[in-house]
Amino acid sequence: MTKQRLVAAIDIGGTNTVFGLVDVNGKILLKETVSTEHFPIPEDLVAVVCEHIKRAMLQFVDTSELVGAGIGAPNGNYFKGTIEFAPNLKWEGVVPLAKLFSERLLIKTVLTNDANAAAIGEMMFGGAKGMRDFIFITLGTGLGSGIVANGEMILGHDSFAGEIGHVIMFADGRQCGCGRKGCLETYCSATGIKRTYSDLLMSNHDKANLQARVADAKYIYDKAISGDKDAIEAFNYTGDLLGLALANSVAYTSPEAIFLFGGLAMAGDFIFKPTIESFERNLLNIYKNKIKILPSQLNENDSAILGAASLILKELN
Amino acid sequence: MTKQRLVAAIDIGGTNTVFGLVDVNGKILLKETVSTEHFPIPEDLVAVVCEHIKRAMLQFVDTSELVGAGIGAPNGNYFKGTIEFAPNLKWEGVVPLAKLFSERLLIKTVLTNDANAAAIGEMMFGGAKGMRDFIFITLGTGLGSGIVANGEMILGHDSFAGEIGHVIMFADGRQCGCGRKGCLETYCSATGIKRTYSDLLMSNHDKANLQARVADAKYIYDKAISGDKDAIEAFNYTGDLLGLALANSVAYTSPEAIFLFGGLAMAGDFIFKPTIESFERNLLNIYKNKIKILPSQLNENDSAILGAASLILKELN
Repeated sequence: MTKQRLVAAIDIGGTNTVFGLVDVNGKILLKETVSTEHFPIPEDLVAVVCEHIKRAMLQFVDTSELVGAGIGAPNGNYFKGTIEFAPNLKWEGVVPLAKLFSERLLIKTVLTNDANAAAIGEMMFGGAKGMRDFIFITLGTGLGSGIVANGEMILGHDSFAGEIGHVIMFADGRQCGCGRKGCLETYCSATGIKRTYSDLLMSNHDKANLQARVADAKYIYDKAISGDKDAIEAFNYTGDLLGLALANSVAYTSPEAIFLFGGLAMAGDFIFKPTIESFERNLLNIYKNKIKILPSQLNENDSAILGAASLILKELN
Repeated sequence: MTKQRLVAAIDIGGTNTVFGLVDVNGKILLKETVSTEHFPIPEDLVAVVCEHIKRAMLQFVDTSELVGAGIGAPNGNYFKGTIEFAPNLKWEGVVPLAKLFSERLLIKTVLTNDANAAAIGEMMFGGAKGMRDFIFITLGTGLGSGIVANGEMILGHDSFAGEIGHVIMFADGRQCGCGRKGCLETYCSATGIKRTYSDLLMSNHDKANLQARVADAKYIYDKAISGDKDAIEAFNYTGDLLGLALANSVAYTSPEAIFLFGGLAMAGDFIFKPTIESFERNLLNIYKNKIKILPSQLNENDSAILGAASLILKELN
């Protein structure tokens, strides 16, 4: 009997590392979580994760074989298999993470930036199945992106392509964590809409400081549902700018569709309606009415692990 | 004796159509020009050009064979071999130009947008030899662009990718010919700098209207050389904005280099210095000091025909 092929999928986050076993159809057979922050030395995290994976494989040993590992990580360099100077991780400098995993698991291991991995997940198991040209946007704490063109992930000469969140929208705009001003993600992200909502509260109402401080994206969504004008305006402002940025993005790679993923994308019409309106209004004529803006079809809880799995599955195909 | 392989190269412009014969090393064996405007019916232009090409081939018939044709054209659709609704041509609607040439010459014929063709020319015979990721920018009447990533021309789902000239820089900026406002090419092009210079003359001097009207990009360059402050300021403003737009472009495809081509790029340091300064200042940290902004290595007079030739040569390889 032919053994079933399984891959190990590892998603390194600033807070947690999620990992597991996935089959070629995207079925998740194992999913576990460890705290990334508890491992100041990357080798220690690798040892623990590999131990879990090997132990889990024991129960499948008669029917399955582990054929590869995929890793999604912030500032992941696909060409080198390294994490490089990731601002959200405690690990400093350049960490050869793919090599560390490969040496312990003795299987082919590939690594890429987390948004790129999620984009490949969308292509393999989500709404981008069969698409050769699309853009994947994650609206989380920041704005991450993965660009697929001609059926391939655009990596760039250094593997750091696809940083649409750091396109400068206003030369003298909001301060960004990257050190520059006016980056798209300072407006269009969970953090961005929170700031927009706070600004609106403070300019439209007196003494709203306290309320402004406690607001998060989910809170703003709940307020919008209840009809709160400031909350709705915050979504409209965010969508208006996101639509413009996505219209500009089309001028680069003319995708068939753009997928929105992450907390902010869960707000449904509150975010999609103003985004699509602004998008169509700002598109060059030749692109109008033919490019779809769609919610990601990946389950939010599984996207990271499916993305990492897709990365190695695509490689092995 | 093996016959030498030649390709027909055709560049369709709003005013003139340039065509010729090119060998696999990029040597131009024939170059001729006809007026595009004199042919309100595309079939008539095709007939004349093909007649010239066939007649020219007679002199090479013993030593060479014609193996394909490449066409660069405004609004060229690579997938369909058509020109679609080109605003600068008298031909209306969709013209199946590749098919028309292929039927008369009885050889494989491919067609793409003129800036894309020039980008492939840069890759095959210019400064981008061996590069897998670069952006090619033409600074002419407008701003055209061709994006190469993973060693392939980015065409997009509809073959209309690479319209960086129509990225909106300011939501309420200068009126663009495309009907929208604030497009990059209304600032960074021969037309754009002319407008900037006129604006500067009119705001810095009284009664400068007449001088402002006669200025063209070459005139502004000559003035800059002679030390004219408004002309130098016009180049600085143009470069400043171009540098920002190119820094934003890097966030999409992270190219190894960006090539500037066309009249404005001939202004040397006047345009390159402010462009590079602004580029580096506006780049995200991970990209700083590693991406080159270079003058195109294509001869301005031959670039169109070499681009069209490269398109078919790349295809035949």
